[in-house]
Amino acid sequence: MRLARIEIDGLDYAARIDEAGVHPLITTADSPLTNLLATPGPRNPERTDPIPADQVELLSPIARPGSIIAVGLNYAKHAQESGMEPPAAPVTFPKLPQSVIGPGEVIEWSSEHSTQVDYEAELALVMLDDVRNVSVETALHHVLGYTCCNDVSARDAQFSDGQWLRSKSFDTFCPLGPVIVTPDEIPDPQNLRISCRVNGETRQDSNTSDMIFGVAEIISYLSRFLTLRAGDVITTGTPAGVALGRSPSVYLADGDIVEVEIEGIGVLSNTCSVS
Amino acid sequence: MRLARIEIDGLDYAARIDEAGVHPLITTADSPLTNLLATPGPRNPERTDPIPADQVELLSPIARPGSIIAVGLNYAKHAQESGMEPPAAPVTFPKLPQSVIGPGEVIEWSSEHSTQVDYEAELALVMLDDVRNVSVETALHHVLGYTCCNDVSARDAQFSDGQWLRSKSFDTFCPLGPVIVTPDEIPDPQNLRISCRVNGETRQDSNTSDMIFGVAEIISYLSRFLTLRAGDVITTGTPAGVALGRSPSVYLADGDIVEVEIEGIGVLSNTCSVS
Repeated sequence: MRLARIEIDGLDYAARIDEAGVHPLITTADSPLTNLLATPGPRNPERTDPIPADQVELLSPIARPGSIIAVGLNYAKHAQESGMEPPAAPVTFPKLPQSVIGPGEVIEWSSEHSTQVDYEAELALVMLDDVRNVSVETALHHVLGYTCCNDVSARDAQFSDGQWLRSKSFDTFCPLGPVIVTPDEIPDPQNLRISCRVNGETRQDSNTSDMIFGVAEIISYLSRFLTLRAGDVITTGTPAGVALGRSPSVYLADGDIVEVEIEGIGVLSNTCSVS
Repeated sequence: MRLARIEIDGLDYAARIDEAGVHPLITTADSPLTNLLATPGPRNPERTDPIPADQVELLSPIARPGSIIAVGLNYAKHAQESGMEPPAAPVTFPKLPQSVIGPGEVIEWSSEHSTQVDYEAELALVMLDDVRNVSVETALHHVLGYTCCNDVSARDAQFSDGQWLRSKSFDTFCPLGPVIVTPDEIPDPQNLRISCRVNGETRQDSNTSDMIFGVAEIISYLSRFLTLRAGDVITTGTPAGVALGRSPSVYLADGDIVEVEIEGIGVLSNTCSVS
């Protein structure tokens, strides 16, 4: 199942997408899943016939992400290009929920704040329920679905701070989407081609099989220390090919179009605007 | 005004506390402030007479913190005791919302996960509304109020990870409370005595005047890069005296009682339980 969030007449709806089109879901006050995806509260879309996909605008696929936990240096070649040792355990940092934008929205920053803004294609997952101390074997039962993330990063701010919160959480620095694909359509999240293109030029091209810590391991590991909650987003690290790791480093610039593509999910496309 | 969150018959209410007692507030679906403090939705407490303070249990004073943004190394002597240079700009890291507990709740961890759990007394503030690009001069207009935070930290995990998310976000590692005090009662947040006691012994004793970056500067600085949202919590760093900085380091142990006290706010007390 492919889940999205769409706007109709100024209201946002969770929706299911299939070949017939886009089906807005009815949300009720006691429907945690649809309330997670769209603004909570009872809401009944006027039309129940499917809407042609090209007639709706997709929003970021989750209205209320809880925490966004990102895993750093989770592909060996990316750790190498960043000048870091591959970690012995998952290294985590946050992206603040206010940094989320949807497909087609603009990644914006001021050149006063960063001149080294980089892309990072990542497989992200949305938690289905609250879990603590879950095993690797059962961890994937707690995944609502998968989506694409661009873990946009201001490298200058990242290295001057040391801690990565600010540099990864500028407003608009967390594009998510275009849809959330449920696990029935992605039985093995560790075998998905993942790539990033800037203005059509391939910059990252890898496979999630190259992750150091897989999705299930990350969920299980984190759940030993803290409760993962329904609606939390985990983004699982980026493969080699970011601007930081290239020589010369060609960072994102005004007007650039960045596309993150993951097999079985789709393409997350955003344009950059620098002021 | 002193705001708290209390439990009555299994439901949580935002409440105001004064000399007469505790006054539960009526919450309505369109009351963002009280919905921020207590679980959203219309709710009318059965009793409107004040409840004696000793008859209610205080919960963590905010039901739905958004992001919790913590500032590191914000007192010069603490930076020194941590072996770090005082930062040139605020250094920020997260505490995940799921780590929040209230006054009187238990700080719990397993000795398998950390044997170096430390206390950090901090002045925390709750944002009143959404702000971007606010000046230092007007920043405090956007503060709902102030509370005490214990930025509990697993030092071994903190130093092995490098990034501080996990070590600061074990479940129960963010005690907040006992109340939120609105700015009319705290006209100058930069002149408050702040201390921490473990089993009655004073370990930290300082004043918020010793902060490197004051509350208004932190809000203004962060708002240059990202939107601070109503309900976000910012915790502003800890003074010298943490276990890490003492010789020998005496970390928290099973049964320890930790009290964070801030002038004009009160005492946040929590007991430790190690399994």
